[in-house]
Amino acid sequence: MYRMKLQIIIFAMIFTTVRSQDFSADSAMISKIYNEALTNGNSYSNLKNLCKEVGHRLSGSKGAEKAVQWGKIVLTRYGLDSIWLQPIKVPHWERGNVERLDVIGGKNNIYSTSCTALGGSIGTDGGVISGEIIEVNSWDEMRTIGKKKIKGKFVFYNRPMNPTFISTFMAYGRCVDQRHMGASEAAKFGAIGVIVRSMTLKMDKNPHTGSMQYNDSVRKIPAVAISTVDAHHLGVMLEKDPKIKAKMKLSCQTHPDADSYNVIGEIKGSEYPDKVIVVGGHLDSWDIGEGAHDDGAGVVQSIEVLKLFKQIGITPKYTIRCILFMNEENGNRGGLSYAEYVKQEGEEHLMAIETDRGGFTPRGFSIDGTEEQLKIVQGYEQLFEPYNLHIFKRGYSGVDIGPLRDGKICLLGLVPDSQRYFDFHHAPTDTFENVNQRELELGAAALTSIIYLIDKYGFPEEGTN
Amino acid sequence: MYRMKLQIIIFAMIFTTVRSQDFSADSAMISKIYNEALTNGNSYSNLKNLCKEVGHRLSGSKGAEKAVQWGKIVLTRYGLDSIWLQPIKVPHWERGNVERLDVIGGKNNIYSTSCTALGGSIGTDGGVISGEIIEVNSWDEMRTIGKKKIKGKFVFYNRPMNPTFISTFMAYGRCVDQRHMGASEAAKFGAIGVIVRSMTLKMDKNPHTGSMQYNDSVRKIPAVAISTVDAHHLGVMLEKDPKIKAKMKLSCQTHPDADSYNVIGEIKGSEYPDKVIVVGGHLDSWDIGEGAHDDGAGVVQSIEVLKLFKQIGITPKYTIRCILFMNEENGNRGGLSYAEYVKQEGEEHLMAIETDRGGFTPRGFSIDGTEEQLKIVQGYEQLFEPYNLHIFKRGYSGVDIGPLRDGKICLLGLVPDSQRYFDFHHAPTDTFENVNQRELELGAAALTSIIYLIDKYGFPEEGTN
Repeated sequence: MYRMKLQIIIFAMIFTTVRSQDFSADSAMISKIYNEALTNGNSYSNLKNLCKEVGHRLSGSKGAEKAVQWGKIVLTRYGLDSIWLQPIKVPHWERGNVERLDVIGGKNNIYSTSCTALGGSIGTDGGVISGEIIEVNSWDEMRTIGKKKIKGKFVFYNRPMNPTFISTFMAYGRCVDQRHMGASEAAKFGAIGVIVRSMTLKMDKNPHTGSMQYNDSVRKIPAVAISTVDAHHLGVMLEKDPKIKAKMKLSCQTHPDADSYNVIGEIKGSEYPDKVIVVGGHLDSWDIGEGAHDDGAGVVQSIEVLKLFKQIGITPKYTIRCILFMNEENGNRGGLSYAEYVKQEGEEHLMAIETDRGGFTPRGFSIDGTEEQLKIVQGYEQLFEPYNLHIFKRGYSGVDIGPLRDGKICLLGLVPDSQRYFDFHHAPTDTFENVNQRELELGAAALTSIIYLIDKYGFPEEGTN
Repeated sequence: MYRMKLQIIIFAMIFTTVRSQDFSADSAMISKIYNEALTNGNSYSNLKNLCKEVGHRLSGSKGAEKAVQWGKIVLTRYGLDSIWLQPIKVPHWERGNVERLDVIGGKNNIYSTSCTALGGSIGTDGGVISGEIIEVNSWDEMRTIGKKKIKGKFVFYNRPMNPTFISTFMAYGRCVDQRHMGASEAAKFGAIGVIVRSMTLKMDKNPHTGSMQYNDSVRKIPAVAISTVDAHHLGVMLEKDPKIKAKMKLSCQTHPDADSYNVIGEIKGSEYPDKVIVVGGHLDSWDIGEGAHDDGAGVVQSIEVLKLFKQIGITPKYTIRCILFMNEENGNRGGLSYAEYVKQEGEEHLMAIETDRGGFTPRGFSIDGTEEQLKIVQGYEQLFEPYNLHIFKRGYSGVDIGPLRDGKICLLGLVPDSQRYFDFHHAPTDTFENVNQRELELGAAALTSIIYLIDKYGFPEEGTN
């Protein structure tokens, strides 16, 4: 200990006196929750079922429809007070059957990459686009290269994720601009298409898809991701011969918005039935892999929270609502629609927690709330010490519950270990087999425990203490 | 915060004043160490090489011989001050080609399990042993069942690891008695052989081997492990029909002790060349799988510590010695011989740290030392906070460095996340593919950082402050 933060400690001591929490009863209940999750948890079997019976489930697809029915059926098993579907409209983009990117070397050698269209990309209208490739590693570099050299070519974004960030989400956040806005930025310089290095720290041959957005004031050009190994290879090839060309063929297209649903189940609160605590993950997934970590894990963990409340016989004071959000991946219509619904109904929400960072060993919670809410949640840290949860920091909660932010609600995010997440994220390898049962169950237990505490003690400004 | 431990805080405050550590310089150095490990680390490529070129390497085997040469060659790359082999004698047990356990049901249906002989087991002398099977889940139960019912039968130990322990090592520790002493205990009641449920929390079809020991005063009987799925199945079969039989054939045998080596490399200390800091893992592995997590990970991390010192240009005050111990798995001859050598040479050791719990995300260190050493190491916790290390507790260090304990030396163990360890431990799945590069590298960085700090500040009782 280098510097003691005495003020914080004194504050905490006073604070502890004011709030009369029962450490040993809380400890015992959390132990019960963990034991139940680790011995009789359904998260893992539910995830297997979702991944293997439903499979991937991009908004607007048959898989997504099936997932909605699946969610409703699974929730029905746990004796909840109500289950319903909230109708929403979702974007409907389809990859189609053809996606091909060939790199043609000096002697007409064809190097076929394994590519994946970015979600939302236009196709190539049945034809093939071909042109030279220019590597760009920053927006500054693109401006320096300029329109003259970029026009008529593919822009190849090859800036890798920075391995020195301990949180891989931090590395992702500083890199994903290439995928997200790369097409329209390149189009401004006259590019004909973009090729993006996959957003992962792992060097392998799996291309990772993900959302991209067009700027409506610029011509739309198609966009694909290639694997890190292919990206590395392509970079080396371009260094040797800047004249090599690429041929791209994509059959993806965007259809009119489709009907879909958020799937919702709840246990009514015994003291404050009109005030809601939300736990949720997203039901939709990308259309490659099985959406196991992203976000099948969050879906089954959110369901498990309600199941554990029922199984253990915890009667919540507040209404505990599990939401399986639709369309997190390419539109956030589920999250936006739910916040809209809450506003329209004038419902009060005490807290919402999101689980959408993979089914890995939980390390703690990120907290987005008032100073007082932050302190209260941090005050629970000691209870989680036996379970190795140690991150109780201010931070981002999640995409789906984000629209609920109103200055009063406390938003939380479950924070699992992040080292392996981007190995699987949006890739064909995001499958059930790559989820560890215990890691998944520990996450469900952590979620249930923090919700148990917040339900029990509330937040002072809510007048519940 | 429920209870404030004011005494500890006041102690820490005084203590901080006494020791003049340079937090920002230390922070900067640790950041440098992590950055280097995460960008230019060799742990992963060295592990690939060890797993794929050498493969498994049980003491006394050709693989172990090859591993010794491999270790020497790899250490030679890093410009160390000296590298040598410490000759030791090791047990030499061989599995042979045949291991078979058939369970024969009521209608002579044969159910073939996938079994693995336990390390050290006798074989069946070219013949087949057959008999009924009796399930036993505790020593008490075995005594209750008694000699009359056990005589002439196989004892089937089917007590599973307890999933409610958060540390899977705790669950392992309470279960491994069945594997370790099960044969001799059953032999006391006249059993003809033992079948042990594999030591893992995962339900799958992989049998896990591991050491067992005979009590010399009892007749030796053969012992195998079967997978958790097979164990579950066998339990169910026995409930339905206690008369089902098993046939066992094993070709394993024990040869005379073989010659082998601990592989040692070091950087000489600039101020205290005669005082040593040890970092080590074990070079031997079981003879199935590739010994990737157990303990290829520890081997390459230990080597990486020296490599990072050299690469970054840290001149240690103490001699930093990396030891690739031989024979941790079935004899601990490497650890015992090294401690013997230290005693004979009258060498002084300041600290030893072992890494032998898998190449998973590091969570902290277990500390086995004096109260003062414990406090000093705990005082470094804040420096590791950005790297998510949070376990700085009194605890067991490791098998190989254990024999160095003399009341003065500080022993440490690297503590990684334990959730997945026993999925792979001693199983055919303990392969390179199941190790994550970043998790492995983070472990090497954590080791290097704690050694850097202990080398820099020493321990007061050593007269170095």
